[in-house]
Amino acid sequence: MGIVVQKYGGSSVATAEHIMAVAERVKRGHEGGLGLVVVVSAMGKTTDRLLALAGEVSREPSPREIDQLLSTGERQSVALLAMALHDQGIPATSLTGPQAGMKITGRYGSGIISEIHPERMRGLLAERQVVIVAGFQGMNALGDVMTLGRGGSDTTAVALAAALHADRCEIYTDVEGIYTADPRIVPKARRIPEVSSAEMAEMAWRGAKVMHPRAVELGALYGVEIHVRSSFGEGPGTIIRKDKDMERLETRETIAGIVHDLDVSRVTLTGIKTGPGTMSRIFTPLAEAGVSVDVIVESAPKEGSSDVAFTVSRGEFAEARRIAGEVAEPLGGEVEGEEELGKVSVVGTGMLNRPGYAAKMFDSLGQAEIPIRMVSTSEIQVTCIIPATRVEEAVRRLHEDFELEERDV
Amino acid sequence: MGIVVQKYGGSSVATAEHIMAVAERVKRGHEGGLGLVVVVSAMGKTTDRLLALAGEVSREPSPREIDQLLSTGERQSVALLAMALHDQGIPATSLTGPQAGMKITGRYGSGIISEIHPERMRGLLAERQVVIVAGFQGMNALGDVMTLGRGGSDTTAVALAAALHADRCEIYTDVEGIYTADPRIVPKARRIPEVSSAEMAEMAWRGAKVMHPRAVELGALYGVEIHVRSSFGEGPGTIIRKDKDMERLETRETIAGIVHDLDVSRVTLTGIKTGPGTMSRIFTPLAEAGVSVDVIVESAPKEGSSDVAFTVSRGEFAEARRIAGEVAEPLGGEVEGEEELGKVSVVGTGMLNRPGYAAKMFDSLGQAEIPIRMVSTSEIQVTCIIPATRVEEAVRRLHEDFELEERDV
Repeated sequence: MGIVVQKYGGSSVATAEHIMAVAERVKRGHEGGLGLVVVVSAMGKTTDRLLALAGEVSREPSPREIDQLLSTGERQSVALLAMALHDQGIPATSLTGPQAGMKITGRYGSGIISEIHPERMRGLLAERQVVIVAGFQGMNALGDVMTLGRGGSDTTAVALAAALHADRCEIYTDVEGIYTADPRIVPKARRIPEVSSAEMAEMAWRGAKVMHPRAVELGALYGVEIHVRSSFGEGPGTIIRKDKDMERLETRETIAGIVHDLDVSRVTLTGIKTGPGTMSRIFTPLAEAGVSVDVIVESAPKEGSSDVAFTVSRGEFAEARRIAGEVAEPLGGEVEGEEELGKVSVVGTGMLNRPGYAAKMFDSLGQAEIPIRMVSTSEIQVTCIIPATRVEEAVRRLHEDFELEERDV
Repeated sequence: MGIVVQKYGGSSVATAEHIMAVAERVKRGHEGGLGLVVVVSAMGKTTDRLLALAGEVSREPSPREIDQLLSTGERQSVALLAMALHDQGIPATSLTGPQAGMKITGRYGSGIISEIHPERMRGLLAERQVVIVAGFQGMNALGDVMTLGRGGSDTTAVALAAALHADRCEIYTDVEGIYTADPRIVPKARRIPEVSSAEMAEMAWRGAKVMHPRAVELGALYGVEIHVRSSFGEGPGTIIRKDKDMERLETRETIAGIVHDLDVSRVTLTGIKTGPGTMSRIFTPLAEAGVSVDVIVESAPKEGSSDVAFTVSRGEFAEARRIAGEVAEPLGGEVEGEEELGKVSVVGTGMLNRPGYAAKMFDSLGQAEIPIRMVSTSEIQVTCIIPATRVEEAVRRLHEDFELEERDV
């Protein structure tokens, strides 16, 4: 029997009607002979509502208690989906993360999966039951529930697919798949039928919201084939393949898509004395404060001093700037910052060893007179940090200049 | 260190403000040097809301999945209360039923406590932490969550008090304690400062809503002193003592109070052939169908046949009547029923061996021309089944005739 893991996000189970629609889809898969493990997120805005309650009773809620609180959202969804399946005559059992054998380690609120004990799931599958698993959670060594943090349900689904040696992991969402750019900004954007996991991970890190990069990378690591599909339609969606890279290099010379993110701020330390350990002196205190730094650029040193700039999300801007100020002083430098930035990235394995793509991107933005504040490149992507107000224009321009609406991507 | 178990019902934790008020009260107890274990119900109407969702997705939700679903309500409350206490600087840890070592057996939706492993709670108390426990739930032998059914949080609190050898169990509710009658019906009703557990159990079974009879009986069995108090005030409430019976017999000749219940229906089998096993033939099928029968009255047999009447809640009336019909036919009898009934009871250890109280009750109802449909008595209570429309009048009349507003009960 082939095993398939399906994951439904919060918008797919937002109401009783949505849950019944998911049950219909699960039923079809079950009747088609698949062994199904279904991972479900909390209903709609449940997590936000619970966080708001936590904010009302406490100025700084304890991460353990936040996990205890938030984990209930997914538990409600799995029980309701099991009931809806029973109502359709389909045998199903809901499991919490701990019941599903998800062992979690790390910190409350941002746990990582250490082991999965799939025996109970296997037993239920052997009885031809649909197994419904609460996403985003598991049990730590103390026996307490711990959540995986953002993207946790995607990660749960991919990890279960790996542990169960599933044929594939299907991620159901409210869009038709992965697009060459955000269709709300670029109406001509097209669905990408297939993408490599490396490309998908870059797109996800650079701002594509459809799937969490952590889950994409886990899939790549364990060779899980991931299908991203709409939970409201029957479209083919996007297939994320692990083995796509090589094939793509041979056959195509193109890019997968343009992604963007409006949640970017920049902090710059100017005129700081450089030497061994300077970078560590700057970034260790930030890491200790839990600030996630994205792009880092250091200018070439001139007369023993240089400028170091980095980006953080807007929510962490004030904290990052404060810490940078404390660090800059003993290094003889100063701090400046810019809060309202965005980033736009061109991603694709087709640009491997082809530096022309970066030049083309700078040219495209330059012609539109969009100022580039910072640049970051890797083998398969080029990212430019630009003013937030110019991001949409940049995405449209790049989508057009790279001829994404015309090519067979 | 004295240990006290406190229990707060759903109305006491209905909103963030309510939860913060509970935290204030818990804080005072903690700072007063008590070792506190706090049992919490689900917030306000959470359980009803979840049951409504279950009803939307399924015509007949599975009891296991209902338990999986409903148990989340209490888990949210405990996490939120722990956060609120942290915000006041009080160390506290929330525990789900399974984390608190509550082992449950029996059926989903109506589990019974088999064992309590209090080691984790004891460890936390030794660290001077407030331990907050989700009521109404525990773990069964499969490792699944199972709920205790109605009155489950009261039962959790009393069971924890017994397992931890607590000084007392405090039940916080939205009224000031136990009253001589429902104050909404009898404005002159008075708070009862002390009541025996036998009286309290009778009052609870006969309709007093303040505390579940199951919890009262558990308290009596294990010798737990229970205080019923308002969560909104500082009044002394009502103390339920195990050792009250003997003392009362010596010193008083009175009754504790009048209780009533409007959720009563009667089914009567008339003219059925009696013989060995007749009662079993009637009540076994009802028990197998899960119908809870309350009062049973069999008339004296005449010419080998008799009438058997019993009461059930209104929700079970149709089912009970159907089953009674199937049973009556082979016994040569017929079935009639009356749906809109109520019961009114006079309860008190003072009436032990004093049959005059029953006569006085019948006289009181007779003078008001309230028809009595059935009568049930035990050593410490007399219950009359009367038309639902006359219940309030009966309660007021009995409260007056038994001079409850004047006596020092």
